[in-house]
Amino acid sequence: MSQENYAQISEVIESGDEQALIDLFEEMPAADIAGFIDENFEIYESLALMDKMSPEVQAEVFGYLRPNNQQVLASHMEVGLLAKLFRDMSSDERADVYALLDVKLQDALMRRLAKHDRDDLLRLSSYEEGTVGSVMTSDYAVIPASGTVEHALRRLRQTAPEKETIYQAYVIDNDYRLQGVVSLRDLITAAPHERIEDIMVTDLITLTPDMPQAESARIISRYDLIAIPVVSETGVLVGIVTFDDAMDVVEMEDTETMHKSATVGKIEGGLKDASVGMLYRKRINWLVLLVFANIFSGAGIAYFEDTISAYIALLFFLPLLIASGGNAGAQAATLMVRGIATGDVTRSDWFRMLGKELLVSLGLGLTMAVAIALVGSLRAGPDIMLVVALSMLAIVLVGSLIGVMLPFLLHRLNWDPATASAPLVTTIADATGVLIYFGMATSILGLPNI
Amino acid sequence: MSQENYAQISEVIESGDEQALIDLFEEMPAADIAGFIDENFEIYESLALMDKMSPEVQAEVFGYLRPNNQQVLASHMEVGLLAKLFRDMSSDERADVYALLDVKLQDALMRRLAKHDRDDLLRLSSYEEGTVGSVMTSDYAVIPASGTVEHALRRLRQTAPEKETIYQAYVIDNDYRLQGVVSLRDLITAAPHERIEDIMVTDLITLTPDMPQAESARIISRYDLIAIPVVSETGVLVGIVTFDDAMDVVEMEDTETMHKSATVGKIEGGLKDASVGMLYRKRINWLVLLVFANIFSGAGIAYFEDTISAYIALLFFLPLLIASGGNAGAQAATLMVRGIATGDVTRSDWFRMLGKELLVSLGLGLTMAVAIALVGSLRAGPDIMLVVALSMLAIVLVGSLIGVMLPFLLHRLNWDPATASAPLVTTIADATGVLIYFGMATSILGLPNI
Repeated sequence: MSQENYAQISEVIESGDEQALIDLFEEMPAADIAGFIDENFEIYESLALMDKMSPEVQAEVFGYLRPNNQQVLASHMEVGLLAKLFRDMSSDERADVYALLDVKLQDALMRRLAKHDRDDLLRLSSYEEGTVGSVMTSDYAVIPASGTVEHALRRLRQTAPEKETIYQAYVIDNDYRLQGVVSLRDLITAAPHERIEDIMVTDLITLTPDMPQAESARIISRYDLIAIPVVSETGVLVGIVTFDDAMDVVEMEDTETMHKSATVGKIEGGLKDASVGMLYRKRINWLVLLVFANIFSGAGIAYFEDTISAYIALLFFLPLLIASGGNAGAQAATLMVRGIATGDVTRSDWFRMLGKELLVSLGLGLTMAVAIALVGSLRAGPDIMLVVALSMLAIVLVGSLIGVMLPFLLHRLNWDPATASAPLVTTIADATGVLIYFGMATSILGLPNI
Repeated sequence: MSQENYAQISEVIESGDEQALIDLFEEMPAADIAGFIDENFEIYESLALMDKMSPEVQAEVFGYLRPNNQQVLASHMEVGLLAKLFRDMSSDERADVYALLDVKLQDALMRRLAKHDRDDLLRLSSYEEGTVGSVMTSDYAVIPASGTVEHALRRLRQTAPEKETIYQAYVIDNDYRLQGVVSLRDLITAAPHERIEDIMVTDLITLTPDMPQAESARIISRYDLIAIPVVSETGVLVGIVTFDDAMDVVEMEDTETMHKSATVGKIEGGLKDASVGMLYRKRINWLVLLVFANIFSGAGIAYFEDTISAYIALLFFLPLLIASGGNAGAQAATLMVRGIATGDVTRSDWFRMLGKELLVSLGLGLTMAVAIALVGSLRAGPDIMLVVALSMLAIVLVGSLIGVMLPFLLHRLNWDPATASAPLVTTIADATGVLIYFGMATSILGLPNI
């Protein structure tokens, strides 16, 4: 879809037919126009293209651009034009863009906005990133409890073009406190003279602006909602989070979790725009930490130097044994971390999951022990193969159990279970693997007197 | 929210007040009632609870239950009651439940359904899992192109209770071919006498039922849609995918990707319900494969046995060196895999990403080389530390570049980039790490004549 649309835009631009371009921009989805600009980004060309759009399309397209490009374009625009653009943008998107601008431009912009827009912008951009407040919008429709269905429908009709959704109308009192919600579905099926307070839903699911943004996505997904109201501590309606913003939150959160699973810190604004310096900072801490953690494995090897010198053939099997513990552990940890995150596994399931993992990893360990015994017997005698096979079983068991227990332990300590990343589990499994393998070798093969 | 609601249900059940329970079920979100039943699942108690719900609530709650519990309850229900339940369920959810039943029960159920429901059920459950067809619903509202706005609104009002969404109405011709879409927003803002064909949107984004389900989520999220129509090759409307189903798809797909990143195969129906046998089967293949892949590392060590025997102190640094390459590689691979999946990084970005990674990993490698040189000098002489520091730099560089290149390579071969899992990248990095380390040691330290 989008690739075809990009090609179509290119074609019309090359043809030089200005009217055709204007028409095209009116009918094509804003997301695709933005995608085209992002892919072929060049400051003055992009500004020239935006000039060919109606103010509404311009505002919508601008909202879809990559943050990096929004920032560059905004700082190259005449402030008056930027203020005009801001007036047409949805309130949550302009707050995001506003946060990207430098202080001088923010001030210049503010002076050109009407008081209402100014207050709204300041309020929305005051919430910390990652909170519900930072993803909510103030473009929602409100109706009074005392009115009728007919009255509410008329009001929705009038305000429809400015609102992000009119499929939910929020019922408020004189102090803007949220009283209830009416869906447009209920409104059009109700009789025109019915009173709003008689048909509104009052048993509401609400958020507060300081909750983590992930909570809004979790609740919207759990209850299949189009939007969810955000209220202050005193019950005043301060915004709504819509399903489409919740989907963006899910994508952001899952990206963060996946990065964390490989010990990469939170990257703002996408990988493509991330600077070398930022990528370095987000990766170095854990890498250095793990270097030191791996000293334990080295110390284990040093401790068994005599055994190794005597049976140097043992070294051949070292990498595959310790890697196996880490791999099985990473599997178990990943299953648990994701299970906890989606709510599939709760704290009360701890013992059951541990028991299941014991059985699964027993099966895995046995299979892998047999596999390595078959192949390894070509390389080493039966005594060493016994050590290798027994070690494999023990290492896979221990690695898997570490993988199950670590996320639960972190969860119980109210840390993020995702800290039990594959590299961390692997490092711990490595160290125990060294001890198990050479410990078993020393006790079964004995230390020869050299 | 849900924990409070669970407590409330418990309380009312214990009080024995039947009417209070009936009232509670009428007002509480179905997702929470289902959550309570799932958490406290016991066949006959659950059936007794469902008996206290109105048919509509019963159908909605049943749709929210875990697949495992749906299956158990369905097979313990009287077939007539199950058929009644099916009539009230949404068409996509009942198709999912139907697929869980055994053939005998499926037949018995079919005989009790009206022809319309039977055809719909057969059609929806005929699509392969993982396709758009398997997540779409047939509970959408259709209107003729020739009618007026007033006529369309009347029709939506009448059919509202049975439809998953009435916020999009699909305009079809006599052969059920999709002509356009009108949103309820447009309908209520248009004049009553306007004709549908004059206000409908005809430049449509559509799906086909055989597309991968992930595509529906990607498009709904990209274009911020409430629902997206699914059409056959001949343009006939066969279903819609709604935003809430798309959110479920995102969760499923991200779960699958995360599992894949740790070499775990696709687990059907949640971790909690997965059997020991299934977990074993989904984990064993890659584990055994990686055991054999790790033989390369072992062979590398064996090849350098003489060097190792001469400088046994080298072994102390082996685990941390090879782990560092794997860890840096896993970071790079995870960033790429997720970047490709979200569309943040495209094929044309390959060179730019590789160049960036070269700089980042140079910085990472230098930092880690300095860190290990400082600590390691307590343990080994300057010649060995030179070998260790240089190896660290080279290993981190090579590991990172493998991490960047492998996902792109897989992507180019039209394989799933997520196959470049942390364990696979680590295994490859381990083998190269062994060669780099001992190769460098042999050439710098020289092979002593014993």
